[in-house]
Amino acid sequence: MKEQKWKTRTDLALEITENLGETEIEDGVSIQINYNENHNMKETIIRILNKNGEQTIGKPIGTYITIEGEDLSLPDESYHKEMSCFLAKRLAYILKQYKHILVAGLGNDQITSDSLGPDVIKNLFVTRHLMKEGIVKNARLVSALIPGVMGQTGIETVEIIKGTVKEIKPDVLLVIDALAARNVKRLNKTIQICNTGIAPGSGVGNHRKEISKKTVGVDVIAIGVPTVIAVPTLVNDALSLLTEDADEMSLNHYIVPELLDMFVTPKNIDEAVKKISYTISEAINEIVI
Amino acid sequence: MKEQKWKTRTDLALEITENLGETEIEDGVSIQINYNENHNMKETIIRILNKNGEQTIGKPIGTYITIEGEDLSLPDESYHKEMSCFLAKRLAYILKQYKHILVAGLGNDQITSDSLGPDVIKNLFVTRHLMKEGIVKNARLVSALIPGVMGQTGIETVEIIKGTVKEIKPDVLLVIDALAARNVKRLNKTIQICNTGIAPGSGVGNHRKEISKKTVGVDVIAIGVPTVIAVPTLVNDALSLLTEDADEMSLNHYIVPELLDMFVTPKNIDEAVKKISYTISEAINEIVI
Amino acid sequence: MKEQKWKTRTDLALEITENLGETEIEDGVSIQINYNENHNMKETIIRILNKNGEQTIGKPIGTYITIEGEDLSLPDESYHKEMSCFLAKRLAYILKQYKHILVAGLGNDQITSDSLGPDVIKNLFVTRHLMKEGIVKNARLVSALIPGVMGQTGIETVEIIKGTVKEIKPDVLLVIDALAARNVKRLNKTIQICNTGIAPGSGVGNHRKEISKKTVGVDVIAIGVPTVIAVPTLVNDALSLLTEDADEMSLNHYIVPELLDMFVTPKNIDEAVKKISYTISEAINEIVI
Amino acid sequence: MKEQKWKTRTDLALEITENLGETEIEDGVSIQINYNENHNMKETIIRILNKNGEQTIGKPIGTYITIEGEDLSLPDESYHKEMSCFLAKRLAYILKQYKHILVAGLGNDQITSDSLGPDVIKNLFVTRHLMKEGIVKNARLVSALIPGVMGQTGIETVEIIKGTVKEIKPDVLLVIDALAARNVKRLNKTIQICNTGIAPGSGVGNHRKEISKKTVGVDVIAIGVPTVIAVPTLVNDALSLLTEDADEMSLNHYIVPELLDMFVTPKNIDEAVKKISYTISEAINEIVI
Repeated sequence: MKEQKWKTRTDLALEITENLGETEIEDGVSIQINYNENHNMKETIIRILNKNGEQTIGKPIGTYITIEGEDLSLPDESYHKEMSCFLAKRLAYILKQYKHILVAGLGNDQITSDSLGPDVIKNLFVTRHLMKEGIVKNARLVSALIPGVMGQTGIETVEIIKGTVKEIKPDVLLVIDALAARNVKRLNKTIQICNTGIAPGSGVGNHRKEISKKTVGVDVIAIGVPTVIAVPTLVNDALSLLTEDADEMSLNHYIVPELLDMFVTPKNIDEAVKKISYTISEAINEIVI
Repeated sequence: MKEQKWKTRTDLALEITENLGETEIEDGVSIQINYNENHNMKETIIRILNKNGEQTIGKPIGTYITIEGEDLSLPDESYHKEMSCFLAKRLAYILKQYKHILVAGLGNDQITSDSLGPDVIKNLFVTRHLMKEGIVKNARLVSALIPGVMGQTGIETVEIIKGTVKEIKPDVLLVIDALAARNVKRLNKTIQICNTGIAPGSGVGNHRKEISKKTVGVDVIAIGVPTVIAVPTLVNDALSLLTEDADEMSLNHYIVPELLDMFVTPKNIDEAVKKISYTISEAINEIVI
Repeated sequence: MKEQKWKTRTDLALEITENLGETEIEDGVSIQINYNENHNMKETIIRILNKNGEQTIGKPIGTYITIEGEDLSLPDESYHKEMSCFLAKRLAYILKQYKHILVAGLGNDQITSDSLGPDVIKNLFVTRHLMKEGIVKNARLVSALIPGVMGQTGIETVEIIKGTVKEIKPDVLLVIDALAARNVKRLNKTIQICNTGIAPGSGVGNHRKEISKKTVGVDVIAIGVPTVIAVPTLVNDALSLLTEDADEMSLNHYIVPELLDMFVTPKNIDEAVKKISYTISEAINEIVI
Repeated sequence: MKEQKWKTRTDLALEITENLGETEIEDGVSIQINYNENHNMKETIIRILNKNGEQTIGKPIGTYITIEGEDLSLPDESYHKEMSCFLAKRLAYILKQYKHILVAGLGNDQITSDSLGPDVIKNLFVTRHLMKEGIVKNARLVSALIPGVMGQTGIETVEIIKGTVKEIKPDVLLVIDALAARNVKRLNKTIQICNTGIAPGSGVGNHRKEISKKTVGVDVIAIGVPTVIAVPTLVNDALSLLTEDADEMSLNHYIVPELLDMFVTPKNIDEAVKKISYTISEAINEIVI
């Protein structure tokens, strides 16, 4: 069933619901859409409510907020500032009950499309050491971690996070990660926030086992941005337009094996990742003080 | 005829000849293949001899040497050393008549897949200033230039090169550039050397007008390595396997406009470009002294 | 007279005038100081008026504007925005008569403290190619160049600039460069603008012959920021406090030769250069449209 | 007693013994020197044997091996290969009893002079995940970690390491770190290996509490390379040559406070750190298989 997997090679709950008919998502899933025309933003809140919903969407019970902003990949500073404020409001609400936030920037900082997580950490205002020393007061405790990827460390990301969580005992883990999308129009233009953690096998680099309350011992909030499309997804979608039978054909006939592991990125990926990671770190910084 | 263009979206003379039947390349083109099994390398020398050959291949009269090395994208140092020596031999022969070589590293050093040219310059042993001051003697004059791309400079690459050529008067211009391939098996595994310069519209970033003896005033040798595949090329090739009619269909139906400007790269592109650029700069360094 | 050279190892006209007694600068030099307390900025305008002034200051006839901003090396965005606006006003006045500006970012982008110039170019809004194609209208023509350093290219910076100037014929050359300061309090906190070009032997990397109207054929405006202190300058200043005789002693006794070529930088040099280069490129961008 | 601290601002045991008279190091310290003239290397083995030795040298009981190689900062590949082999031999002996090695690259990868540790990790051949999956057999277990610095993470380096050690249970921790030297001739030319861990307050960035068997629970071997000199050390040494009284004077009179936190680095620090980190990672890679 490899084709099956390819077709659903998206980390965005939003893209999964879009592909389903209305009747299919009726039970166990609620969808709410907010438009903000002034700011050219659209927010979709998908709630997976029960086992039924889990099965339909293929993601665990929880809330998935998707914020789409057409200009997010452009170097328009005032737009990024607005998005930052909007995101900060959402985060303030989601994180309000937690005193000490550990932010983990997942991904490989040597690969541009996968460096979103580490880049967010590099612009973050961390306070834990400053508050311990009394240099900063009345702020929220923020600590941060760039665990790297298994190819670099030989260690599962979740092992490093779990070990650090046990030592410093944060109240919540906020993970930032680059995702894979299905639709090219979402690349670098969408931010997904969910409260279910990160499932194995998703993301750009497949770099971890599940990171969730079950594995790390504290609540996990995940922020993700799609920065790539997998090549098989892309080809499958093109073929689907040509033939009704694409579902039943093996993509193996149309793609050489080397391509299965390749990704599609826009030319301006370096700049786009820089901009969006800055927007996310500014949003987090805003809720610190 | 955009589809036409997409299908031939390769900068490798080798890939064009492969797609033609034997009778088609009979007149005006000669092809010679050398295997070096010890070193897991294959060399193809394509000579376009006359107007007929020009029309068939779609590239100007001249010689196109393609060196394919399966392990070129891997971090195997001894293999890279061998490839470096092999390349140095070819360059020594091609450049033997020139005293002063200006090496220009084309491309955008901020985009990994396009940074091959600038990366080669960064490892180059330049001698011009040292020989002028008498610090180095009995070496070949080597100077270098990273002209940048038009999006960054507002200046055509050929204008910067031409201006510099007029000032420092080299005997030959050696340009290094990242190319687009058609076949994923060639990505980061093939080096093309030609004596015709660089034609407009090729390369990763379309970043220049023709760079040739006609435009810069001195002989031009070009070294290119394919580091990306254009998305339309990829999809077209997949569709061709599905239907005989792909030739006549418009790819516009199968690809959203955003994708037309995107590229496919392997995940290890950062490491691959680093390795190959080093191999090329070492080959050039070898012929300096 | 090496000590002599060491003691004056500053590229800032301001630091030279500070070391001179009032009577010494009386003739041929005018100094005007503007404070802007709201914005925590101080502007000093030094005019070298004649040969007398040239001899006293050791710099050519012309105007040297120094803008000092205490918070310039800090990541305070609103302060940087103010500085950007202030700088834009000065540049708008100085450059008002020119239609086409070529901006050259001098220095080695591989060495943090010397990468200010190239970094400015990377954030610049260049318009020349867009206006040629009619995509942008009613803007000022801006083109840009990162010539590299002689150790990398074997070519004098002035040769590449001169060649490009002849090809594209700008009305003025605006060069951006990292400088050496004498006083640590000025590091990454001072911007100098002058209309005399750049003299040999200054800057972090000593990477050029004179770049001036005489050598490149168009007016030259230079923007410089001190990012380093030379080690001999530093030691000499410390010794001067200890003994009146420092002037006459040879620093050779107190510094091993290896140190003569080393530089002092603050730990946060990476961040400071990133911030200031962004502020300068924003100021230039502001006068484009 | 700040001057006292400044004068001893070296992380090299070798530089401490050099400053002491022969009688002072008689008791509790043994020193053995090996020359390897063929390879232009000198090895000094300092053993601190007891409390007496600890007090004299100011470092804990243990063995400190210093390898000096004049050409270590130069881009001479064959020399680096020799140094790599030499270092590999020492490491093979020191680490022979351990099956699973966790290598931690300390320091800030955003500051060139402090990025030695992270750079070593980036070139390391890690095997833990490959051996778990059976892809690699008969190799030594190697895992790796880039913990970052407290300014970036808000977490003590030792906390992240300790947490990870508890999760993955290595037999030994090998830490790599950039150090501060006193003598400019040692910058980027010396490698120190010791079996005592890392004491608080040393290194470029003061970025941790003690990392030792006591704090992390497994044996700790440390590899360090001096990449900077602290400015106060430098000035103090210059002043000492001028006056006998330097010991008793306050450096505060000769150095402005801003300088106390600045460092001296050579211009080629970027290249030097790249070369040496590669040499160290190659040495570690050699003992893996």
